[in-house]
Amino acid sequence: MLDHLKETIIALSTAPGVGAIAVIRLSGDDAIQITNSVFKGKNLLEQKSHTAHFGTIRNDEGEIIDEVVATLFIAPHSFTKENVVEISCHGSPYIVQRLIKLFLAKGVRLAKAGEFTQRAFLNGQFDLAQAEAVADLINADTEASHKAALNQMRGGFSEQIKNLRAELIHFASMIELELDFGEEDVEFADRDDLKKLVNQLLSVITALVSSFDLGNVIKNGVPTVIAGKPNTGKSTLLNALLNEEKAIVSDIAGTTRDFIEDEINLEGVVFRFIDTAGLRDTEDKVEAIGVQRTKDKMKQASLIIYMFDLKNDTLTEVNRDINMLENLGIPFLNVGNKLDEAQQDLYNEMKKDKNTLFISAINKEGLEALKSKLVETVNLDNFKTGDTVVTNIRHYDNLVQTQNSLNAVLRGLDSNITGDFLALDIRHALRFLGEITGEITTDDLLANIFSKFCIGK
Amino acid sequence: MLDHLKETIIALSTAPGVGAIAVIRLSGDDAIQITNSVFKGKNLLEQKSHTAHFGTIRNDEGEIIDEVVATLFIAPHSFTKENVVEISCHGSPYIVQRLIKLFLAKGVRLAKAGEFTQRAFLNGQFDLAQAEAVADLINADTEASHKAALNQMRGGFSEQIKNLRAELIHFASMIELELDFGEEDVEFADRDDLKKLVNQLLSVITALVSSFDLGNVIKNGVPTVIAGKPNTGKSTLLNALLNEEKAIVSDIAGTTRDFIEDEINLEGVVFRFIDTAGLRDTEDKVEAIGVQRTKDKMKQASLIIYMFDLKNDTLTEVNRDINMLENLGIPFLNVGNKLDEAQQDLYNEMKKDKNTLFISAINKEGLEALKSKLVETVNLDNFKTGDTVVTNIRHYDNLVQTQNSLNAVLRGLDSNITGDFLALDIRHALRFLGEITGEITTDDLLANIFSKFCIGK
Repeated sequence: MLDHLKETIIALSTAPGVGAIAVIRLSGDDAIQITNSVFKGKNLLEQKSHTAHFGTIRNDEGEIIDEVVATLFIAPHSFTKENVVEISCHGSPYIVQRLIKLFLAKGVRLAKAGEFTQRAFLNGQFDLAQAEAVADLINADTEASHKAALNQMRGGFSEQIKNLRAELIHFASMIELELDFGEEDVEFADRDDLKKLVNQLLSVITALVSSFDLGNVIKNGVPTVIAGKPNTGKSTLLNALLNEEKAIVSDIAGTTRDFIEDEINLEGVVFRFIDTAGLRDTEDKVEAIGVQRTKDKMKQASLIIYMFDLKNDTLTEVNRDINMLENLGIPFLNVGNKLDEAQQDLYNEMKKDKNTLFISAINKEGLEALKSKLVETVNLDNFKTGDTVVTNIRHYDNLVQTQNSLNAVLRGLDSNITGDFLALDIRHALRFLGEITGEITTDDLLANIFSKFCIGK
Repeated sequence: MLDHLKETIIALSTAPGVGAIAVIRLSGDDAIQITNSVFKGKNLLEQKSHTAHFGTIRNDEGEIIDEVVATLFIAPHSFTKENVVEISCHGSPYIVQRLIKLFLAKGVRLAKAGEFTQRAFLNGQFDLAQAEAVADLINADTEASHKAALNQMRGGFSEQIKNLRAELIHFASMIELELDFGEEDVEFADRDDLKKLVNQLLSVITALVSSFDLGNVIKNGVPTVIAGKPNTGKSTLLNALLNEEKAIVSDIAGTTRDFIEDEINLEGVVFRFIDTAGLRDTEDKVEAIGVQRTKDKMKQASLIIYMFDLKNDTLTEVNRDINMLENLGIPFLNVGNKLDEAQQDLYNEMKKDKNTLFISAINKEGLEALKSKLVETVNLDNFKTGDTVVTNIRHYDNLVQTQNSLNAVLRGLDSNITGDFLALDIRHALRFLGEITGEITTDDLLANIFSKFCIGK
């Protein structure tokens, strides 16, 4: 452990702003001693871990800054495995600032972003993937993202990766041992066993890599475009979906999240609606650039809801649009609106496609079926049965790199390359795997990861 | 205690929004038992008061919602004097909502605004004036307002008022005893002693009443106008004062208060700048209405900084302005700007008034003297020596009513009115005094007070 880790750090740990209470957290060797020096109440140095004590905090002039409850977590029985004091004070930003300034004057320093979690990681509380999940958990705002983050925080794929990595390390050592023997042409590492292990590893890693698409949807939502010509009812549909959600979410004061005007949450998956000029908006202008721009925007989407007008569109128009969308190569859903005023022939023709949905956005008809269909497009089933899902792009990147290295190992084995090249590829794979769980870290890597955390975590 | 008070209530107690942690508070008979029913970890029913326990909270399906620390405060050793559990969870609004919903499903109900503090008051934790100070403390954002709120929360004038009220109650009983004896013409209550007590009470209450002006300044700031013709440098001065403050406040992340663009905090007193069209802005238009509007705006101010232009103004102009300001009847401060380019004769003439200040806003010259002068206009000295200051308009109103009733008692004593009328006026005084500390309350009064609190307090 590095010396600077021993320094006692402090930060506001609850959300900024006015609340009934706020919690300030200190961590480090002197956390309890320093708190005790400004605390009037019981002698905190004589108290047990996991106990809470009422008292006042006073400055050097004896002036009371606040009445607080100080809760002690004595090393190693704390989040950071260091001495931790959580000071629960009145939730006034002014008081929080006064208290933090007082502690700064006592030699405590402000925690950097994520520094509490970083210390927890460095002190062995959990591995790096788990530490990263703490930030994901705090930012989770849907059932699926919450579940994915919680799974990862509580272990997730860490154990599996660690075990496979340990086996691979064994082979690497064997091969390197062969190299030590140089000319003698011994083979400590059985090539068939190695091949078997690498294949086994590859199948686990390939599954994780391919879970990332789902993971990304879980974490970031599904970028969705509602395409259709003007007056087809695109915003009527969007508002109908949004308003319903607003009505469903109960108003637990202080917890209601701000609604982003173009997001809906269906069964724990967020669909983010991208605003486009809309299909056919530009067709009359015969402007290739305009049409191209619309298409480019649609390409950002993972899903297109193609909305056509059962009252006013012609079959030719609809077919031309569908043809265009097929060329885009992005999954799309055909939705006929204005069912209540539909032209019978268009309706009958479109009905032949079992996947086409029919709604009346204005009468809120057919919305349930549409929502089910939307959720269906995101295959959450795997996730629901408990499979591990990769949601972190850093992990994804490392897994892909591991995959490449392991494939190189396989190719090497097939072409009987020498042990030293084999060892090199195995070491690559080991490094990429080790960086996921933090068995291998660099200062840069850690700084990069934890700087994205909020201060106080 | 009313039955509904036994109900267990719940609320988010920390500020809403994303933080490292959030604290959810439960209070009521079943707080610990209900928490224990969803908590996996130690059996909370077997733990001591003021202890903190790590564990998970799970729903009925056994799904983990979060890893938490539950801190127990067993009745009567808690803020509300009821069983209290504080659940420290990850600071995600989504998780907070999930947890609160889970508890609601277990029969806990959402706390109303201020309900925790109201219970603390009803259970005798503190009196009403102290309870009100809790809200003031949370909203305090200057040294002076913080100090006033903390003083009041820790007792303030409550004790003094309670003691004087107890003595007055004694006299009231004596007089009412006389009334019981009806025709017999006895006098249990010595009229001279009563007069002495009432005078004593009046002197205390008059001091408190007159402290309200200062209290109001402490709590709400000093509405201030910078008056002067265009291009005198009004906004240069305001910006110079504001920017300095912004630079002074250290950036403790998450605690920095939002700056209100037209407020400055000088030695703990907030000066709120009111935007006016400005003196003489309208004079060229010879529009009586325009000038009147400006004057009306200035009348909202408690203090006017009259800024004149040492470079461009004539003595006649300045004297005319000062004359106009004197007629307004609001304290004002003469400040000559552009000292670096001053006309010598104007400067010399104005210098004869010892109270005129000279600055160069653009060069930030003379600002310290101006700031000292501003603070001087608000006489904080009394407050600094520890005198009690009334900051709450409800208290002020009750004190004024008490004053009126006590004056009526004095007039009654002087004119030898009968005991029954005397008793009536004394009862009035007792009621108004009792309402301050909450010895006399009505449901309406309590509802009115606590509804202004935030939820979770």
